[in-house]
Amino acid sequence: MYRIGIVGDGYTAADLLRIISGHEEVEAVTILSTENIGKKITDVYPSLLGFSDLVCQESNIENLAGKCDAVFLALPHGLSVPMATQLMEYGIKCIDLGADFRFNDSEIYNKYYNLTHANPQLLKEAVYGIPELYREQIKAARLVANPGCFPTSAILPLVPLLAAGIIETNDIIIDSKTGVSGAGRTPSPTSHFCAVNENINAYGVGTHRHAPEIAQELSLAAGSPVDITFTPHLVPMNRGILSTIYARLRPGLKGADVRQVLNDKYGQETFIRILPEGVMPHTKWVYGSNLVHINLVVDESSRRVILLSALDNLTKGASGQAVQNMNLMLGIEESRALNSPAVFP
Amino acid sequence: MYRIGIVGDGYTAADLLRIISGHEEVEAVTILSTENIGKKITDVYPSLLGFSDLVCQESNIENLAGKCDAVFLALPHGLSVPMATQLMEYGIKCIDLGADFRFNDSEIYNKYYNLTHANPQLLKEAVYGIPELYREQIKAARLVANPGCFPTSAILPLVPLLAAGIIETNDIIIDSKTGVSGAGRTPSPTSHFCAVNENINAYGVGTHRHAPEIAQELSLAAGSPVDITFTPHLVPMNRGILSTIYARLRPGLKGADVRQVLNDKYGQETFIRILPEGVMPHTKWVYGSNLVHINLVVDESSRRVILLSALDNLTKGASGQAVQNMNLMLGIEESRALNSPAVFP
Amino acid sequence: MYRIGIVGDGYTAADLLRIISGHEEVEAVTILSTENIGKKITDVYPSLLGFSDLVCQESNIENLAGKCDAVFLALPHGLSVPMATQLMEYGIKCIDLGADFRFNDSEIYNKYYNLTHANPQLLKEAVYGIPELYREQIKAARLVANPGCFPTSAILPLVPLLAAGIIETNDIIIDSKTGVSGAGRTPSPTSHFCAVNENINAYGVGTHRHAPEIAQELSLAAGSPVDITFTPHLVPMNRGILSTIYARLRPGLKGADVRQVLNDKYGQETFIRILPEGVMPHTKWVYGSNLVHINLVVDESSRRVILLSALDNLTKGASGQAVQNMNLMLGIEESRALNSPAVFP
Amino acid sequence: MYRIGIVGDGYTAADLLRIISGHEEVEAVTILSTENIGKKITDVYPSLLGFSDLVCQESNIENLAGKCDAVFLALPHGLSVPMATQLMEYGIKCIDLGADFRFNDSEIYNKYYNLTHANPQLLKEAVYGIPELYREQIKAARLVANPGCFPTSAILPLVPLLAAGIIETNDIIIDSKTGVSGAGRTPSPTSHFCAVNENINAYGVGTHRHAPEIAQELSLAAGSPVDITFTPHLVPMNRGILSTIYARLRPGLKGADVRQVLNDKYGQETFIRILPEGVMPHTKWVYGSNLVHINLVVDESSRRVILLSALDNLTKGASGQAVQNMNLMLGIEESRALNSPAVFP
Repeated sequence: MYRIGIVGDGYTAADLLRIISGHEEVEAVTILSTENIGKKITDVYPSLLGFSDLVCQESNIENLAGKCDAVFLALPHGLSVPMATQLMEYGIKCIDLGADFRFNDSEIYNKYYNLTHANPQLLKEAVYGIPELYREQIKAARLVANPGCFPTSAILPLVPLLAAGIIETNDIIIDSKTGVSGAGRTPSPTSHFCAVNENINAYGVGTHRHAPEIAQELSLAAGSPVDITFTPHLVPMNRGILSTIYARLRPGLKGADVRQVLNDKYGQETFIRILPEGVMPHTKWVYGSNLVHINLVVDESSRRVILLSALDNLTKGASGQAVQNMNLMLGIEESRALNSPAVFP
Repeated sequence: MYRIGIVGDGYTAADLLRIISGHEEVEAVTILSTENIGKKITDVYPSLLGFSDLVCQESNIENLAGKCDAVFLALPHGLSVPMATQLMEYGIKCIDLGADFRFNDSEIYNKYYNLTHANPQLLKEAVYGIPELYREQIKAARLVANPGCFPTSAILPLVPLLAAGIIETNDIIIDSKTGVSGAGRTPSPTSHFCAVNENINAYGVGTHRHAPEIAQELSLAAGSPVDITFTPHLVPMNRGILSTIYARLRPGLKGADVRQVLNDKYGQETFIRILPEGVMPHTKWVYGSNLVHINLVVDESSRRVILLSALDNLTKGASGQAVQNMNLMLGIEESRALNSPAVFP
Repeated sequence: MYRIGIVGDGYTAADLLRIISGHEEVEAVTILSTENIGKKITDVYPSLLGFSDLVCQESNIENLAGKCDAVFLALPHGLSVPMATQLMEYGIKCIDLGADFRFNDSEIYNKYYNLTHANPQLLKEAVYGIPELYREQIKAARLVANPGCFPTSAILPLVPLLAAGIIETNDIIIDSKTGVSGAGRTPSPTSHFCAVNENINAYGVGTHRHAPEIAQELSLAAGSPVDITFTPHLVPMNRGILSTIYARLRPGLKGADVRQVLNDKYGQETFIRILPEGVMPHTKWVYGSNLVHINLVVDESSRRVILLSALDNLTKGASGQAVQNMNLMLGIEESRALNSPAVFP
Repeated sequence: MYRIGIVGDGYTAADLLRIISGHEEVEAVTILSTENIGKKITDVYPSLLGFSDLVCQESNIENLAGKCDAVFLALPHGLSVPMATQLMEYGIKCIDLGADFRFNDSEIYNKYYNLTHANPQLLKEAVYGIPELYREQIKAARLVANPGCFPTSAILPLVPLLAAGIIETNDIIIDSKTGVSGAGRTPSPTSHFCAVNENINAYGVGTHRHAPEIAQELSLAAGSPVDITFTPHLVPMNRGILSTIYARLRPGLKGADVRQVLNDKYGQETFIRILPEGVMPHTKWVYGSNLVHINLVVDESSRRVILLSALDNLTKGASGQAVQNMNLMLGIEESRALNSPAVFP
C-alpha cells in the first residue's frame, strides 16, 4: 500500500480523495490545509463521509516527510516550489496540480504569474504531466507538473496534427467553454450562483495564463513557434470543458487524413475516444470520468478543420490526470481507480 | 415627478432601479452605498447601462435630505432604524426592505436578530407592507416595513383562511423553496455556484427569522396565537419562491369552501391569481413579475388543505412590493410600473 | 462470472450499465429494447463508449432464456408481469424496477396503475427490495420488486420510528423534491429544459402513485394503517431526491430519542449515513452514489420531528439499489460495485 | 389602436404577447394555432393569465382578413409563403419570424431548407428586418423578414467593420453559444432537461442554416463575397446568445479604430451598447430585453480582432426585434414597449 499525501483542501483535493477511495494500491494518509486545520475533511466535504477519516493538518514538511511515498500539491501559484523542493530532498515523488512547474522557461512563468520562480533548475527536471504524450518520462520522473484543464483539452487534439505537419502553425484559434468548478472553491463575485446561472460570458480574453502553457506544448510538437488565440468562456455547469478549435489544413489534406492521424496516435489509449463521424462531444458524456472525447469536422472550401474536445475539468483536467501520473510514477497500472464511465445523465 | 432615493446597492436595489426605469411618475435621483462609493451603478450592474446614470454616494442623511420625496432602505438589519428616524424628521416617506420595522413587539426582533431595537416606538407607527391586506394604512403611512419574501408567500394564502376561521390554528406547516438571489449578492460558500447547482437542501430548520414574522401576521388574522412549522429550502434557480403549505380544515369544510374564501378576498386584486383547479403554480410563470399565483388541493380524508403559492422573491417578494407600497404612499396608481407578465420561458 | 440481462434502455438501464461496468463478478451480456433494436447501446448512451459493446435486441424471452443468471426489468408498468413470469420458469432471478410487484394487494395496484394485474399470486412471492429492511428475504428471493425512488427516501427514515412506536401514525407529511431524470428519457412538455429550468412546481398533489406504496410499507412497520400526505415537486437538477418529512412525536420523546432509534437501526449500514447534528442533507453529497443521507430536527413545542433524507433517484432510488438486491440474490458481497462516494461538486 | 394577429403559438408567440401586453398603441386581437385550437392561450402559457383572453383559432386567412392591421407569422419554414401572399392581398402588413423571406436568392433557400420557394418574387420585396441596418426600407415595407437569432448577433458587430473595409473578408469565424429556447417548444431528445443540463456541445457544425443567412448580409456590407465559419453551441440556459467572433484586421489598424467604427455606427442606437473597454458582454445582462451588448479585444500581434456580442435570442433575436419592425412599419415610435432593462439577476 503506497502512502499518499495531499497538500490543499480545494475541489481538486476533494476529487483526489474521491478517486483514491476506490484505489486498491494507495491510501491517502494525510491532508494539509491552511484554513481548515483541525477540521475533519468530511466537515469540509460531507460527500466523503464514510470514505475518509482524515483531519486537516498544518501545511508543513514535518507532516509529510517520512510519512508519504508521493504527494499531490494543490496550492496557490508560487507555494509549490519550496514545498516540492523539500519533498524531493526526502525522496518523495511530487505531482503539482498548480502552474509552478509547467513552464520550461521561468521567464514566461514570472511574466504570467507575477512571481519570480524560486527554483528554476527544477523546471528542467519537471515533466509535463500528460501521459498520452510523455508516458515514459513520467514513469521516471520525481516531479510531474500536472497540466491546466484548458491546456489538456487543447493540447491533446492539436499535438498529433502539428507533429504530423498537417495544419498551419500560425492560424489556430481555441474557443473554450468551462464549468465553474475550475475557478475553485473560494467564493467570489464571479462564482456566485446568480452571476453564473442563466448566463454565459468570455473572460481573460487575450490574457489568460493558460495560453502560454498551450503555446509551449504546441511549439514543441511543431518544432517551431506556434501562436494561438485562446478565449475561455464561463458556462453555467459545475464540471466540464468543451474546446472548439479552429485550424487550417495544409493544402491537399482532407478530414479523413486528420481522423487517421488522431486514430493512429490515440487509438490504443484507455482514456481518449475519437468519436464516430458526426457525433459531437458532449461534456456530460465524460462527467466525473477521466475520459476525453474528441471529434472533428473539416470545411474543405476554407481548408479549416474544426476540432472539438470534451473532458471533465476536475478529473482528466486535474485530479484524475494527477492520479494517472501518480500510477505511472509508482509503477502501478496506469488506469487503476480511473477506468469508469461518466455519471450520466 | 417624485424624487426617489435608494440606500443600498444589493440585488433589491438593482430590481428597484429596473422597475423604476419604467415608471413615468417617479425618478431615482440618488443611490447610497458603502462598498461602491464613487462607482457608477452601471459598473455594478451593467444590465442598467443606458437606464441609469447614478453614481453611488456615501451613505449619510445629507445625500437624501431635501433631495427625495421617498426613500427605499435596503440595508443590513439594524441600520435602517437610525436612517429612517432621521428621514422621517425631514418628512421623507420610508419603505424599509429589511426587518427593522416588521415586528410589533421589539422583544421578538431583539431575540431573532440579536440586536436591541434603537427606536421601538417607531414599530407602532410602521405599517406592514402587504397592500392586499393593509392598503388603507399604507396610503396614510410615513413608514412601511416591506415584508420578507417567504412571509409574503405564506401570509397571502393563509390570512383569509384564518380570518374566516376555516382552518385550525395549531397545525400549519410551511415548506418553502427559494431561489438563490434571496441570499443577497455577497459571495459566500452557500451561494457559490457549485454549492447550489444540481443540489437542493433545507436550511435554518426550526430557526429561520421569517418564522416569527409569519406567525405575527397569522395570529393577527386568526385573532389568537397561531404556531407554525417553517422549513426553507435552497433551489438551484436565481429567482422564485414556491411555498407548499399544509393546514387542517375545520370539520365539514371542503375544497370549494377554501377556493371561495380565496376568490372573495383576492378576486379583484391586480397581482394575485387564484389558478384554475388542477393547475399547480410554477415559479417561472411569475419570473420577474409582481404576481402571486395561488392554488390548493384538499385531501378530504385527512381534512388537510395543501396550499401552493408562487412569487418572485426579488419582485413581489421585495422590490416590486416596495414600489407597490411607494405608489400607495405617494398617491400614485397602485400598479404603476408593475403590471407586466413574467419573462417566460 | 454471472451473466446479466437488462430489459429496457431508459436512464435506469444506462445507470445499471455504468455500475455493472465496475463490477468484477457480473457481466451485462444482453440488453433488450423496443425503439432502438439493432443499435449499439453506445449510440444511445455515448457515455458508455469503451465500456459496453452491447447491441439492443428485440424484447422477447428467447434473448434471455439460458443466457442470463439474473435479469433487470426496466419496463413500462404492466409489461414486467408476463416477462417475469416466463423468466422465473427458466429459473432466472428477476429484479423489477417498475411497480408491477411492489404491492401486496393487487387491488391497490389495479386502482393506481389502471391495470388488471396479470399474475397476482406472484405478488405473494415478490420481496420488496430495500435491503436495509428485507435483507434476508431478498437473499432467498427469486423475484424482487425494486422500490420507487420517492418511497425509498421516505420509508428508510420513517420505518424505524414507526416500528419503535415513537411517532403518531395519523399525522405524517412527506414533501419531496426530485430531479428530472426520475421522469425518464422520453421527451415531454414537462421535461423540456425550458419548462424545468429556473422553475419549481408541485405535481400529482394528492394523487401520486408512490403514496400507496409508501403507505403500505409504513403500515407494515407500524402494525396498523398509516395514512400519509405526499407532495412531490420537480426541481431543476438531473439527479437527486430530498424528502422533508413532518411527523408528530409521541408524548415525552425528544430529538435524542429519534436519533438513537435511527442510529440503532442504521449505524452499521454501508449505504446509510445519519449526519451529525445540524448538518442538513444535500442531494449533491450523494450524487451518483448509492448513499442515503438522513438527519432530523425536533421542534419540542409542537412535538414535531422534521426528518430530511437525500438520495440519488437513479442510483439508490433505482439502479444502485437494484444492483444491491442482485448482489444479495446471487450471493455476492452486498456492496460490490456500489461503495463509492458522490461526484462532488 | 392597431389590431395585431399572431400566427403560431410557440415561444416567440408567447414573447410577442408578453411585449405587446405593455404596448399602448397596438392590441393583439387574434392568435392562430394548429395543435391548440379552442384552447385559451393562457392554458398554454399561464404566465399570461390576466394579460390576454385570446383563444387559439384555426390557422386560416378568414381569421385574419379584415381583422388585423399587421400580422406576425411564427410558422414552420415553408408555411409563411402562402399565408403572407394572401395577407398582403388584403393589405395586411406581415412580419415573418421564420426563414421564408430572409434570402435574396431562392436557390439558397431551397438548398438549405429542402423546399421549393412558392413565391420567389416576394423575396425581392421582403426587407431584412434589422432596423439598425435597414430602418428606412422597413418603414416602407409591406413584408419584413425577421432575422434569425444567431444572424442578428453576428451581423450587427461585423457589418460596420466590413462596410468600412477594416477587416479581411476571407477569415471570419463565428463561435456562437445559445440557450435552449431557440430550439422551440416542441419536446425532443435534444431539448430534454437531462440532455442539456450540466452539458455543453456543438451542433450543426459546418451545416447550420443560419450560416448562409449571415454570409448574405456580410457580403452585401462588404460589396464582395464573404465566407464564414459558423459553429453554434447549446448551453444550459433558457435564453441568451453569445457570439464570439474572430476576424483579421487589415494592416495598420488597431483596436481603437474598430471601436471608433462601432461607436460611429451604433452610438445613437436605442438598443445597442458598445461596452466600456474590458467589460465583456454577459447574456444575463440583456435577459428578457431588446438590447445587444457588444465589445471587442484586439490581439495586435496576430492582427486578430475578437468581437463579442450578447442578446436575448427570443427578444432582440426574435419577438422584440419583430415588434421593433412592426413599430416602424406602422409609424409608431420604434422603441415603444421595448425600452426596458434586463431582468437581472
